[in-house]
Amino acid sequence: MLPQGTWPAAVAWPRTREEVQSVLKEASARAIPVYPISCGKNWGYGDACASLDGCLILDLSRMNRIIEVNTDLAYAVVEPGVTQGQLVEYLRENQCPLMVDANGAGPDASLIGNILERGFGHSRYGDRFSHCCNLEVVLADGTLLNTGFGAYPQARAQHIYKHGIGPSLDGLFTQSSLGVVTRLTFWLMPKAERSSFFFVALNDAQAIGPFMDRLRPLFLSGTLRSTFHCFNDRRLLCGDTTFPWDRADGKQALEVQHPEVLQQLCKQFKIPAWGGSGSLTGTALEVRAASQAIRRAIHGLAGLDRLIFLDESSLRWLERGVKIVSVIPQFRSLTQYLKKIRMGVEVLKGTPLRGPLKGASWRSRAAVLDELDPLENKAGLIWVSPVLPMTAQGLADVLIPSEKTMHRFGFEFQVTVSCLNERAVCAVMSICFDRQSKDERDRAEACYQQLLGDLTKNGFIPYRSSSIFPTVLWEASPDYWQAVERLKAAWDPAQILSPNHYIRTSPLTK
Amino acid sequence: MLPQGTWPAAVAWPRTREEVQSVLKEASARAIPVYPISCGKNWGYGDACASLDGCLILDLSRMNRIIEVNTDLAYAVVEPGVTQGQLVEYLRENQCPLMVDANGAGPDASLIGNILERGFGHSRYGDRFSHCCNLEVVLADGTLLNTGFGAYPQARAQHIYKHGIGPSLDGLFTQSSLGVVTRLTFWLMPKAERSSFFFVALNDAQAIGPFMDRLRPLFLSGTLRSTFHCFNDRRLLCGDTTFPWDRADGKQALEVQHPEVLQQLCKQFKIPAWGGSGSLTGTALEVRAASQAIRRAIHGLAGLDRLIFLDESSLRWLERGVKIVSVIPQFRSLTQYLKKIRMGVEVLKGTPLRGPLKGASWRSRAAVLDELDPLENKAGLIWVSPVLPMTAQGLADVLIPSEKTMHRFGFEFQVTVSCLNERAVCAVMSICFDRQSKDERDRAEACYQQLLGDLTKNGFIPYRSSSIFPTVLWEASPDYWQAVERLKAAWDPAQILSPNHYIRTSPLTK
Repeated sequence: MLPQGTWPAAVAWPRTREEVQSVLKEASARAIPVYPISCGKNWGYGDACASLDGCLILDLSRMNRIIEVNTDLAYAVVEPGVTQGQLVEYLRENQCPLMVDANGAGPDASLIGNILERGFGHSRYGDRFSHCCNLEVVLADGTLLNTGFGAYPQARAQHIYKHGIGPSLDGLFTQSSLGVVTRLTFWLMPKAERSSFFFVALNDAQAIGPFMDRLRPLFLSGTLRSTFHCFNDRRLLCGDTTFPWDRADGKQALEVQHPEVLQQLCKQFKIPAWGGSGSLTGTALEVRAASQAIRRAIHGLAGLDRLIFLDESSLRWLERGVKIVSVIPQFRSLTQYLKKIRMGVEVLKGTPLRGPLKGASWRSRAAVLDELDPLENKAGLIWVSPVLPMTAQGLADVLIPSEKTMHRFGFEFQVTVSCLNERAVCAVMSICFDRQSKDERDRAEACYQQLLGDLTKNGFIPYRSSSIFPTVLWEASPDYWQAVERLKAAWDPAQILSPNHYIRTSPLTK
Repeated sequence: MLPQGTWPAAVAWPRTREEVQSVLKEASARAIPVYPISCGKNWGYGDACASLDGCLILDLSRMNRIIEVNTDLAYAVVEPGVTQGQLVEYLRENQCPLMVDANGAGPDASLIGNILERGFGHSRYGDRFSHCCNLEVVLADGTLLNTGFGAYPQARAQHIYKHGIGPSLDGLFTQSSLGVVTRLTFWLMPKAERSSFFFVALNDAQAIGPFMDRLRPLFLSGTLRSTFHCFNDRRLLCGDTTFPWDRADGKQALEVQHPEVLQQLCKQFKIPAWGGSGSLTGTALEVRAASQAIRRAIHGLAGLDRLIFLDESSLRWLERGVKIVSVIPQFRSLTQYLKKIRMGVEVLKGTPLRGPLKGASWRSRAAVLDELDPLENKAGLIWVSPVLPMTAQGLADVLIPSEKTMHRFGFEFQVTVSCLNERAVCAVMSICFDRQSKDERDRAEACYQQLLGDLTKNGFIPYRSSSIFPTVLWEASPDYWQAVERLKAAWDPAQILSPNHYIRTSPLTK
């Protein structure tokens, strides 16, 4: 996945929390570095590889029990091996009227793994870390710690409240190496009386900034509550096809070397400059009220091509209609187009699909198969994901220089702009490369370092790091990291847990 | 405020973060216990007193600068001495169209002080800790730590995103003694296009459980987003009057000794078995849609007396009408009634009033004045505030035995049920006592210990503690507190900061 991988010393597959405790106790006593993974599907940021060579990989994928699902209070208690696909399937089989927040990492990605990296999804509960609680954690020496009200085994509110009494510790176990989470409670959403999905198309690349200025008041007022994602043309394109190796050599970005090819591909796949998707839920009248507020807010925006609201029944109706007219050749492309809409709707509805993963394989020269994961497709992908204010100015300050940098290293500028909360967006830029080409690997690594360095200098810090933590981020904030290292020393004095995973440790291996 | 106070060794009033750093550096070197307070208005849980005698009180009330208010991104950067009243006043003076979450602690209560105890308010941002970020913290040895993206001084997202990169530390500084917060960013709400306030009256004490079962789906679906509070009759009554010392002796609960007096007072002040208040914001159509969903959900509930929706204009119209008819003696009580509605509306609108503090003085024998604070009114009050599921069963399991316990110790059962999130409520039970009476102080202390012990045993742990932390809560979860003590040792090895404030330290003084 990343330009370089690392070699493990060994792999352990515990099945229970007690086994995790024994492994860590032993590892602490012998100073063996341990790198826990949930399912190893940290696409865009890593895979099953540790940050350093020579670690014992603690693969938690066999701890995959769904311990409890509570329909009245809408939560699930899960282990680290539970994938988003597995939980969705479980709810379906048990006819449980609850919905899971889904994201594009595919059905085989661990829920806990994603939460602990503070990943996000597409629904009202898209900020996943804010919608979980009650972590069961094994510390480096094998000590057990339950956070929140889980600290009191009898506590009746342990699954439904974010904190306990005393300091709130959950945040410590995200983006860190301070403990191994072996269970948590994940909040779910009741299926809504009415769900509406809306799709926005902008026909001008510059319109994204002013568009965000229009969206922000809708988030601040509470009209918009689901994570909203906007994809630029090249980001959308990689969902439909792969790099046209027959028409370009990939030494330069396609839009620089052969803008006409990009243009032709976008036309072929009906791809706008930007496409965005979000959802609204509630009663019929609530959904209508929110749709009206969105229409009003976006009305007259320069560069607005389309704003479409769809619900499940209107989409089904369209699908049936298109099936009929697609016997006429001119309408055949509509089928493809509607398939994309359906894929978007399914993710918004909480169905984690394999489709969105395909984009990772944009620059792969291998035969890319939808059912394979990015590693099997020989895909190379690094995400650089700075956080910025949801303003036109913020977007201009990030997107314009970043595009130039990516072109300098010969990569297409693929970016998703995701609304993380009411005020902030994350610009997730994909450096897609052919993992089989040394030249592309080297350029990808250099591009990554340059982008990240420039963004950090300009005040745009990523919300999340690849599994190889960028030294520049440690060096730019020594006081903060030193304070964190003091906590690390308190709980993991032998520094065995996830060396260099966010928290810097002395290099244990060369 | 509490049955016992403590004596300070000295008081320091720093004006700057640098002064806080010097004090702590010196205190760490000399092992002097330091107890920081923001404004000392921790009503129901404490005042300006430390948990132990002999501390240096670090009074931060003079650090009261509003450093920045950003209207576009809706946030304020404040110091610990900034009160909720001060921020509201600042916004009003600067005609800034933003709204602050207000609560019943009065205009002089510190925002940061309340957030760090994880207090809550009455609006969409009622969960205050979830709506702040970017803490500036001085550790025990004087080291400075900035959390979130604030760790990078140049970070453009430092005021608008909850986390930074790496572990999320903010939770560590709530309900703890791990650092002194000298600044943070507090998120505000744009004034809504339309605000509606709704009031519910139940005429049956048993109806609260089934009522919560009806509300829960509205929270889970996202229709209700503001903190909703329900007050029982005795809790409502203390807003209107004080204990009828002329008709009862207070040795027993009024409802036990003289139920007819309680009944007569409730009739006089038009007080229902339960009264609740909440708000809706959005466009006119959004507010209408949400009102409709609420009406539908509550329709036909046994024990429902009234459900009223009001907006500012309809309330003003009523006020004018009542002013006119109140010349007729029979209608005079309407004025009083409408005054209460107005007070409720003002708090929901984000105006922190002195009125709600009056309830603390229920058992005070002193002449109670509205403009004085509870300490000056000689009020005694301890809150016991367990968290429980938002279900009829949860409420029955907490309220029925707790009422019996309070009666056993001779106190009226006053309780507020507050919806903390979509799944959990907090039952805040007030032990109101006359602080001038040794008998009442002793009974209050004994009642507190009994209630808290029983609730803890039965799985109902409080969300927050009084400034004298209950030993039973440490003893019921030794593993959790030991893990926390290891963090304490890392950042405050001399254990100078807030001894025994949530985190147990060796007793420093006797």
